[in-house]
Amino acid sequence: MSITVVGSVAFDSITTPAGRRERCLGGAATYFSLAASYFTPVRVVAVVGDDFTHAEESVFQSRQIDLTGLERTQGKCFFWAGNYLNSLSEAKTEQTDLNVFADFNPRIPSSYQDTRFLFLANIDPVLQLRVRQSLPDAKLVCGDTMNYWINDHRDALLKVLAHLDVLLINDTEARLLSGESNPVRAARKVLALGPKAVVVKHGEYGATAYLSSGLFDAADADALVFRAPALPLDEVVDPTGAGDSFAGGFFGYIASQPEFTPAVLRRALFYGSVMGSFTVERFGTERLQQLTRDAIDARFTALRQLTHLDLHSHS
Amino acid sequence: MSITVVGSVAFDSITTPAGRRERCLGGAATYFSLAASYFTPVRVVAVVGDDFTHAEESVFQSRQIDLTGLERTQGKCFFWAGNYLNSLSEAKTEQTDLNVFADFNPRIPSSYQDTRFLFLANIDPVLQLRVRQSLPDAKLVCGDTMNYWINDHRDALLKVLAHLDVLLINDTEARLLSGESNPVRAARKVLALGPKAVVVKHGEYGATAYLSSGLFDAADADALVFRAPALPLDEVVDPTGAGDSFAGGFFGYIASQPEFTPAVLRRALFYGSVMGSFTVERFGTERLQQLTRDAIDARFTALRQLTHLDLHSHS
Repeated sequence: MSITVVGSVAFDSITTPAGRRERCLGGAATYFSLAASYFTPVRVVAVVGDDFTHAEESVFQSRQIDLTGLERTQGKCFFWAGNYLNSLSEAKTEQTDLNVFADFNPRIPSSYQDTRFLFLANIDPVLQLRVRQSLPDAKLVCGDTMNYWINDHRDALLKVLAHLDVLLINDTEARLLSGESNPVRAARKVLALGPKAVVVKHGEYGATAYLSSGLFDAADADALVFRAPALPLDEVVDPTGAGDSFAGGFFGYIASQPEFTPAVLRRALFYGSVMGSFTVERFGTERLQQLTRDAIDARFTALRQLTHLDLHSHS
Repeated sequence: MSITVVGSVAFDSITTPAGRRERCLGGAATYFSLAASYFTPVRVVAVVGDDFTHAEESVFQSRQIDLTGLERTQGKCFFWAGNYLNSLSEAKTEQTDLNVFADFNPRIPSSYQDTRFLFLANIDPVLQLRVRQSLPDAKLVCGDTMNYWINDHRDALLKVLAHLDVLLINDTEARLLSGESNPVRAARKVLALGPKAVVVKHGEYGATAYLSSGLFDAADADALVFRAPALPLDEVVDPTGAGDSFAGGFFGYIASQPEFTPAVLRRALFYGSVMGSFTVERFGTERLQQLTRDAIDARFTALRQLTHLDLHSHS
């Protein structure tokens, strides 16, 4: 079924040890929707300026992404410039121009009203909550956030968390949000804030899902934690968008399945890891634009093989 | 079959956020041999001073560890004091007294001459090489090292690497040894230095084995990388000895099996992760002294379950 995603569509200027790209198409909603589009139809809610041209639009159209909810307004798109010269794990921001994003007030087209799967990308939690409440039929809501909202807009963020099924964050954000350095206790504290599951991303080491005991019927404590590795890559060209691509693979796979079960969640975590691994192989969205489902499934198989233990094999 | 381990037997004074312990039994050979003893017989080559009493000896004896190669000399045991108050990932050394270890010249008892499995714990690479050459019948040699030897004794270390089947290091050591920040390229460069396999430990995220194509017959590139996760733990009391316990579980399992195959290597990586996870749950060797093979196998199953993807399951 379709996913509706609300978030940023932007231009990024990116410098990494592999080179520099000026004004690539970027933004969380862009990476998310491209990644998810290989699994399920995607509808975007975002705002762009008049520098968003046919060239950018065609990137979405070639993946059959629904842009009915893309508001076009006077001014310029959200712009971010950053570099990864010190570390591929963390961007150094050089410039952030909110531009038309500063006054973003998400409007949900009537054709999106039947949304069952909703992804709230990393935007102001006040807007996340408003969108969630505008789509009361959403049965599975997944959200992202970042340090800035955790530190400076905690009250608004806590209101959103109470309405989330799945929260996607990274290790640093989990520590900040919970005030707890141990990762397991941090995850438990985050679950106590409302989400039925928290997926903690570990960058090059994959991601761990912690489930509240109420999410599925499973009362078995062992079934409440699941970890997907990441594929060891011999070249990371540009880490931008890896987390949003992970989210797109993760939630896209879930939305493509008839039911949300523990087995689906496990596979979704692997598909998230797969989509993140593709994104970082090229600058911006280059790699995400050129994938096939066969290439995705081949990497899924390789990722499974990476940690698979066949207890009956002697080879 | 028996493993011979050469390394330190020491006393450690350890401070962590969970408390402080004075003069615990420690040292790489101690952690290694206790962990490995749950899988296979272990023989120790080490030196201790007259502060090594019956109390310490009985820890080894209760695990049937062979101390024929434990040299007793006048003076005091190797002593290390450190704390993990800033980070559980890295110890801050407060004091190191080499004591009797300063003049350690490993002597191999004649009863160890039939050694097939040799573990060279983190000691001077000149001594590692001497021990390796004193045991020409060793058919599988696994070694550890640390930043100090990589930085300041590189030539001696390179001579040892040429004689190793498996090198166990961590992410930081792999970067230092290879001069390469990308983990896959770093591992390839380390393999080019001689070891047939390198196991890179990632602390709380597990470990990755990179194999040279000549190790097993498998020419399949996918089969040359394997990753074991670590179990998410809700309390880490004391990280001391986790790496040596990993090595003990890893190599102990390999030595217990009739053949060294890719499947054995994969399971060994999981057993290494299991033994490391037990060690950090208590101070020093407390947890390692009180295990059962059933408890170890139960945790092995839980660790496998943590990342296991059953493609045919719909639950």
